[in-house]
This record gives sequence, C-alpha cells and structure tokens, in this order.
Amino acid sequence: MIGPRLDEPELIALLRGRFLRRGRGLELGIGDDAAVIRFGGERLLLAKDLLVEGVDFRRAWQPPRFLGRKSLNVNLSDIAAMGGRPLYALLGLALPKNLEGPWVEDVLRGFGEAAEEHGVLLVGGDLSRADRVMISVTIAGRAEKPVLRTGAKPGDFLFVSGTLGDAAGGLRLLKRKNETILKDADGAPAGKSRRPGIRLVEAFLDPQPRVALGLELARRGLASAMIDLSDGLSVDLGHLCRESRVGAEVWASSLPLSSELRMLFPAPLNLALHGGEDFELLFSARPAGVKELLRLSRRHPLYPVGRVVRGEEIILIGCRGRRSRLPERGWRHFSSR
Amino acid sequence: MIGPRLDEPELIALLRGRFLRRGRGLELGIGDDAAVIRFGGERLLLAKDLLVEGVDFRRAWQPPRFLGRKSLNVNLSDIAAMGGRPLYALLGLALPKNLEGPWVEDVLRGFGEAAEEHGVLLVGGDLSRADRVMISVTIAGRAEKPVLRTGAKPGDFLFVSGTLGDAAGGLRLLKRKNETILKDADGAPAGKSRRPGIRLVEAFLDPQPRVALGLELARRGLASAMIDLSDGLSVDLGHLCRESRVGAEVWASSLPLSSELRMLFPAPLNLALHGGEDFELLFSARPAGVKELLRLSRRHPLYPVGRVVRGEEIILIGCRGRRSRLPERGWRHFSSR
Repeated sequence: MIGPRLDEPELIALLRGRFLRRGRGLELGIGDDAAVIRFGGERLLLAKDLLVEGVDFRRAWQPPRFLGRKSLNVNLSDIAAMGGRPLYALLGLALPKNLEGPWVEDVLRGFGEAAEEHGVLLVGGDLSRADRVMISVTIAGRAEKPVLRTGAKPGDFLFVSGTLGDAAGGLRLLKRKNETILKDADGAPAGKSRRPGIRLVEAFLDPQPRVALGLELARRGLASAMIDLSDGLSVDLGHLCRESRVGAEVWASSLPLSSELRMLFPAPLNLALHGGEDFELLFSARPAGVKELLRLSRRHPLYPVGRVVRGEEIILIGCRGRRSRLPERGWRHFSSR
Repeated sequence: MIGPRLDEPELIALLRGRFLRRGRGLELGIGDDAAVIRFGGERLLLAKDLLVEGVDFRRAWQPPRFLGRKSLNVNLSDIAAMGGRPLYALLGLALPKNLEGPWVEDVLRGFGEAAEEHGVLLVGGDLSRADRVMISVTIAGRAEKPVLRTGAKPGDFLFVSGTLGDAAGGLRLLKRKNETILKDADGAPAGKSRRPGIRLVEAFLDPQPRVALGLELARRGLASAMIDLSDGLSVDLGHLCRESRVGAEVWASSLPLSSELRMLFPAPLNLALHGGEDFELLFSARPAGVKELLRLSRRHPLYPVGRVVRGEEIILIGCRGRRSRLPERGWRHFSSR
C-alpha cells in the first residue's frame, strides 16, 4: 500500500513487487537501465524515457533541435549503460494544438540527426494532443554480453566517462535567464569568441550518449557493473551499490570537474555529486582490468572516482582525507529543483 | 514544409518522409499497426500508444482499473492486427503530484490484469510528473507471418470481428454524465438487473483486443490485409485501402450493430461507420478462404461487411441499394469529438 500522495521510490517498489517476473525469455526486467530479453537466439534490450514539458525541459530554454536530439540521446544512454548497440526507436509525441509547425519540424530534425549519428532507425510511434509537449521514446537494441547493475564487487574501482556537474551548471545558468547564452548555444560555431558557460549549457541541452564506450567495455568484459548518470552521481551510485549489495568510497579530489564549472560556480563539487543529467557512464572494474582501462582512456575519457567496498554505505573521502556519509540527493526534474 | 498549425496527417507524412528507411533488419517501419523487424532469426513487432488525460480519456469517467486495462489492451490490439503474439510491455507514466496513491495502484492493478490475461510481461518503463495523467505503453511481440495493411486485392471480402459503434455509443452516454452508468460499470455483476447501455459503456471503457483471432487468421493465412479499428471504420478502412491501393464497398445493411446501440441511438449506423475505439479487427480475405472463415466464426464472431474493389473510392451501399461515397470521418480524441 502506498500513501495518499505519490512518491517515486514507492511507486517503483510497487511496480517491481507487482511485476517482478521472469520467464518467456525475460532475463532482466524492471530495475536496470534496460530490460534484457532472449529473442530469436539473441539478446534484445528495451528501454523507455519520458520527457515532459515543464518537468524535464522548458520550451523557452530548449531549442527544438536540441530537444529532439536529447529525447533520443537519453534513451541511447540507457542502452550504452547496458553495453548494447541501439538499433530501433519509437517516438510518441503529445503536442499542444497551437504549437507551430516549424518548431515540430526542428524537433524531428534533431531526433533524425541523433538517430543518424548512432545508426538508429525510427520504426513507429504515436501522436496525441496535450496541453504541454510530451515526448516518449522507446529504444530497442542488442547486446551480446549485457553489463548489469548487479556485478560490482568489493575491491573494484569506480570510473566515470567524463566531467560531472556540467549539465547541472548549465541548467543553473539557464535558470538565471541568460538568454544570450541560449542564442549562442543554438548554432554558434565553437571557438574562443563564445561566452564562458556555453559549454555547460551545451552539456545540459545536448548530452552525448557514450554508446561507443559502453560497447567497448562490454566487448572486452572490463565493466563489472554499469549505470548511466541521469539523476546525479550520488543517486545513481546508490542504485548501483544497492543492486550489487555493496558500498562505495568516492574520492572527492578525483572527481573530474571542468574548468568552466570551477570558474563559474563557487561549489562545483556539489554539482558534480548531486547534479543530474550528466549522461556519463559510471561503472565498476576489477583491479585486473585497470591497466587495459588506462590504455582505453587514450581514446575515451575515463576517470577513476572511487572504489567499491563491503557494506552498504557510500562514503565521501574529502580533499583532506575526511570521511563522511554521502547523502543521496539528485534532482531529476525541473519541478523539484 | 508543414503549416504554422499542426495537422496530424501532415505530421505523419513528414515522419514517413523523413524516416522511411529500410535496412538493418527493418522489414516494415512507420505506416502499419506495428513495426516488423528481423531480430535473431525471428520477427519482432514493436508498437506504441499514448493515452493523454482530457484527450484520450477523462479521469472522472474512466475508473482507474479500466484505464490500466485499456492502456495495455489498445496496444495488444495493434499486435493482434499484425497477427502477432504480444510478449513484453514497457509502461511510461507521467502523473500529477497531487494524484492519490490508491488511484495509481488501481491503474497498475488493471494493467497487471490485462497483462496476465494475455501472457504479457511488464519489463520496464519510466516515471515523470505532469499536470495531467499521461500513459505511454510500448508493446513488443512476435509474428511468424505478419499480416500487413498492404495485401488486399480487388475481389477480397471484408470482415470485422465484432459489433461496431458500441464504444462510440458508450462514450456518448458517458458524456451525458450518467454517473450511475459509470458506477454500474465498475464492478457490478453482469445480469438482467443492469441498466441498458451498460454494455456500450463497457465497450468504451474496457475494449477487448482480438489477440487470439489475429493469431489464428495469421497462422491459417486467411487475412490478406488487416488493421484494428481505433479511429472508426471509415477512417481505418481508408488506411487499409490506401496502403493496398484499392477501393472498397461497404454494405450498410451488413454492419453488425448491437441491440443496445439500436435501442438507445436513433442513428446507430453513423456510430458504426465513424465511431472510434471499437478495437475490433478489420481484415480482407480471399474468396477462397471464406468457407474456412465461416467455420472459424463458430469460435470467433466474424461479420462480412463489404468487398474490396478496384480504384481508390470507398462506397457505401445503403440499405436500399443506394451507392454513395463514404466520407472518412472518425473521431479519435475527446477534444475533437
């Protein structure tokens, strides 16, 4: 029984309780980045993400082309986190009546660009009306050896695939209604003439799913557990640790922070720990694989950020060696930010 | 280029134009009830439907258990229309903050019931917030020989799998705010004591996807083309005819109308022709298969309703043999009804 008001963890627990089933080819259901299904002798991955206007994005801030890109790319990030190859997408669009045609065309253009970049085919979808834009994307992919959230063992190292907190910083800049930033982000050429902060805004508006890295980690068997960082490091590391029944140490001084984030925010570490929407990969790796990971880091950014430990606590080891419990707080949605 | 205001057919044309691709296993993309994909030596079906509060349903009219059932069943109907077996579902829920827990539990209970009835596993999904309830369901299934919309040939007979217009009639009764009807629909035992009209309301609130029939038609190769009736006979027959590049004759006097519909509505034929949400199957069949279909009709309701002809017009043959062009008008959404 859940309470009179809804709470996301309660609802997920309810769903898992009610629908936790195996059989008929289902190898992994609710509780990872994507479902894993035996289908025709291969492994099919299925995942779904919703983007709701006013909650997950704002039309005034999100140029439609970027919105289209992001609506697909956040799904590709789920497939990347399984070490899979994204293949097919379904697009559900609920649109207000008075929405302008060119706006929708730009969303589709962005969606098409991202699909093209990652070799994904749009195979179907549905249209409806709504007061606010709602985008629902389903992605199907394939994995030979899917990487789950459950495989981390004490002693494993923790890695992330890029700088953290940039998207959260970018969102804060957008909230300050710096509209010139937004104008720059949509179409301005990269270069020195761009305002500082533009890279942060881009990280928020146009995250890059780490599909190639995820595939390579899975192929080489280098990741023992993996998740994508959508809700913030503290929250998503919490998911990974709970599913693997382990704890973790996070090394504050090792968290990769971009120079822009350090420059523009007085407490960049907070954004890196609790900021959402990084869409980087977080994975654990056995000590025996670290050498190979170092070689891999010549082609893909890879940063060691901590270690898996026994127990269930997540400990932040501060810059002066101070140990403290890392609270899980991420902010996924605009409304709760 | 689409106009400044959006129009659904324009948008679909834009999507098809931009994303009409084959390759990488995709056998059939946008434009049928489900996509058909070669995956690991089998045929994977993927389809998606959106239900938006105030557009596709109203919370005041739709008991939550029925809403949960319907959100899955309309997707199962898409798989049925391909002659496929539904297997796995993903559920996206965007919920208002102030929604009550038990309401959501009832939606999930209904969803779970329908899943159980049809052997479907919920394998994943996503949660978000919204001002109005939005339910996005993706269904994956399997088909050995999918039945497309494209196979109808002049001379084929047209069949439907049940009475038409009941759901549209039920919706009209609900619109009259007959709240006692609604109370009866949710949980009252079937029987003589129930109000007339209750069966119509049930047809709207709790449509039954024709999965078993679709599978059998596909297995026996009896349907040359098939679609499910979600937007109304005139609209969906239009889709089938356009995809098959044929015309059709519809026999008004053969359209199956329930006694309740005849009793409660002065123009039941209009509801049968243009009412949406029947979720019956409409299919074409070669004359050689009609005998076998008659035998099949002992186990599944089957009604011949017309014939496929050359050309592109859809002609209604009235009760006194009068021929007239059948206009395509269906109403899918509350807002446009």
